Amino acid sequence: MSDTTGKTIKCKAAVCWNAGEELKIEEVEVAPPQANEVRIHILHTGICHTDEYTLDGKDPEGLFPVILGHEGGGIVESVGEGVTSVKVGDHVVPLYTAECRECKFCKSGKTNLCGKVRATQGKGLMPDNTSRFSIKGQPIHHFMGTSTFSQYTVVADVSVVAVDPKASLEKVCLLGCGITTAWGAVVKQPGIKGSTVAVFGCGAIGLGVVNTAALVGASRIFAVDTNPNKESWAKKFGATDFVNPTQLKEGQKIQDHLIELTDGGLDFTFDCTGNTQVMRAALEACHKGWGVSTVIGVAAAGQEISTRPFQLVTGRTWRGTAFGGVKGRTEIPGLVEDYLNCKVKIDEYVTHHRKLDDINGGFHDMHQGDCIRCVVDMA
Amino acid sequence: MSDTTGKTIKCKAAVCWNAGEELKIEEVEVAPPQANEVRIHILHTGICHTDEYTLDGKDPEGLFPVILGHEGGGIVESVGEGVTSVKVGDHVVPLYTAECRECKFCKSGKTNLCGKVRATQGKGLMPDNTSRFSIKGQPIHHFMGTSTFSQYTVVADVSVVAVDPKASLEKVCLLGCGITTAWGAVVKQPGIKGSTVAVFGCGAIGLGVVNTAALVGASRIFAVDTNPNKESWAKKFGATDFVNPTQLKEGQKIQDHLIELTDGGLDFTFDCTGNTQVMRAALEACHKGWGVSTVIGVAAAGQEISTRPFQLVTGRTWRGTAFGGVKGRTEIPGLVEDYLNCKVKIDEYVTHHRKLDDINGGFHDMHQGDCIRCVVDMA
Repeated sequence: MSDTTGKTIKCKAAVCWNAGEELKIEEVEVAPPQANEVRIHILHTGICHTDEYTLDGKDPEGLFPVILGHEGGGIVESVGEGVTSVKVGDHVVPLYTAECRECKFCKSGKTNLCGKVRATQGKGLMPDNTSRFSIKGQPIHHFMGTSTFSQYTVVADVSVVAVDPKASLEKVCLLGCGITTAWGAVVKQPGIKGSTVAVFGCGAIGLGVVNTAALVGASRIFAVDTNPNKESWAKKFGATDFVNPTQLKEGQKIQDHLIELTDGGLDFTFDCTGNTQVMRAALEACHKGWGVSTVIGVAAAGQEISTRPFQLVTGRTWRGTAFGGVKGRTEIPGLVEDYLNCKVKIDEYVTHHRKLDDINGGFHDMHQGDCIRCVVDMA
Repeated sequence: MSDTTGKTIKCKAAVCWNAGEELKIEEVEVAPPQANEVRIHILHTGICHTDEYTLDGKDPEGLFPVILGHEGGGIVESVGEGVTSVKVGDHVVPLYTAECRECKFCKSGKTNLCGKVRATQGKGLMPDNTSRFSIKGQPIHHFMGTSTFSQYTVVADVSVVAVDPKASLEKVCLLGCGITTAWGAVVKQPGIKGSTVAVFGCGAIGLGVVNTAALVGASRIFAVDTNPNKESWAKKFGATDFVNPTQLKEGQKIQDHLIELTDGGLDFTFDCTGNTQVMRAALEACHKGWGVSTVIGVAAAGQEISTRPFQLVTGRTWRGTAFGGVKGRTEIPGLVEDYLNCKVKIDEYVTHHRKLDDINGGFHDMHQGDCIRCVVDMA
């Protein structure tokens, strides 16, 4: 039990006061965890496009002021009444996809989407409909149930998982989103072994898909990106081929080019861009009769995907995945072990580092072609 | 060997000279089958919306003049060189989805779409790029590789299956399309047993899906149709519930109504309408996390399906099926046995009969709410 247990903690956090504004480093008050809640000392956090999506005001459901961040690693500072999933001192990763193991979804055995805290999480609040964050009495919204851009955060006990303390939190924080999403999207899709795969977009998620497809034993892996610098990245992660859609014959579509290259299309494709036109190309690049396309990227608000229904009737399947279909509390500990045993890459994704005071620079980094992930040191 | 073997046969056929015109009964010349071809004496044929789609000129790939029809039953009159799949006198059903058992598709074990005769079939020709039909020297196009609106037709030997002669050809002709499509779409979808199902559209295919879902053991089957007369039909075929989308609360969408009725959505939905807005509703009526929607209906040319990608990312799957995923040569004989053993309904679908001379009346029948299938007597 630390001397802060049961007390409000004052600490630094990056606060987004209004959509479209830069983050401001503020002193925030973090209230003690209530029943079934966990307060975490966040040591490191990644920055993901989903944070920027809300920051920029593109998310119509974005709520402000808010503390963003959902790829965190930290240590449990204190726990509320009834918490059994983690204990003080545990090294943990907060989970934006909860796992209560009791709801209809968790018990279905068919999905990782948990219903337990979904409604309040979507409102930027804890399950009791209040916030644990405030600045001079003004409540600040939580984000994705995680808010890792604060030195201390409070999460539901179903929204956190303890991991092996031998693993560096500076690295395994990335299991909070991107790498786990990519890993799950591939390993939970039967049939990848020996099959052809195309991955659209070579950001952290795309590279994770490439890497996992290679691990699983895909026969050929096409990485697709408009940035030519991504070719060496993709090949380092296991791609056999790289295709730049901006360098095709005039008028040729990327899907038609891939169909040509593969004598009929890919067995599996993955959209890791969030661009709805690319999602369509990924579906249409699939082989007639059996191709499966998985949407991983998050599209801008209001955008829709389209295709001719003939694409489906002739045997293509369009599906999607959130957090890679991974049940975080159950599966992330094993992923950490795989990382410690050098079976899953994490270190290679970390190209940039920033201090909390300089977190806005991390958002800048994200747009540089040479950045895969920027990890923020919260100290 | 009949006395017509090797000779051109003159017979009656319903010919569509131009898009949008009524069929004309003409005397056509049917050339003998070439190598790997089979000439069939057609005794009965169903009329399907796909025939009308081409007849009406809605299919941009429609070719004229043409002999339509793809739900036929007949007897093999003669066979060309090298034919081993059927023999003279066999009772047969022509197959618009061939099964060569040799191509990449057939050997994949993943699809029923065969590549063997696809290219020429799409051009309205036999595999040697010529037609067997002519009128006073003018070639007439084949249709879907079957052209069952002729008293004699020629098909590729990979596009026909022999069936038990104990089964009435007047009934099992319907296995050439609608009933088989519906049956396959359900039995090849794992997980229907014990699950909730919604079927959009209660024509022959929709009723077939309802019936097969009931046979397989779906826990609850919602039939959806704008025609209130279809309620009694749907219930007769096994639906537990009937929903009329024109009778909802003002402003309510059918998908939202079904989600309410089922506490979150359906496990499986099937579009049997060909309407792209309905296809969208069918997807969106699926349960988050695991719902699977199958497109069976054929949409009008140029129409596209759309949805928010969030629908997929949150665990819904959009797929489609052609001919129900059924390999006709391999699977239809068993379906005929199931019919003879009263496990699969066919008789119940036949609500109307016409003579060949009156085939245009059959197209009229199809638009009557009380018509499921009209079968044409080709004699």
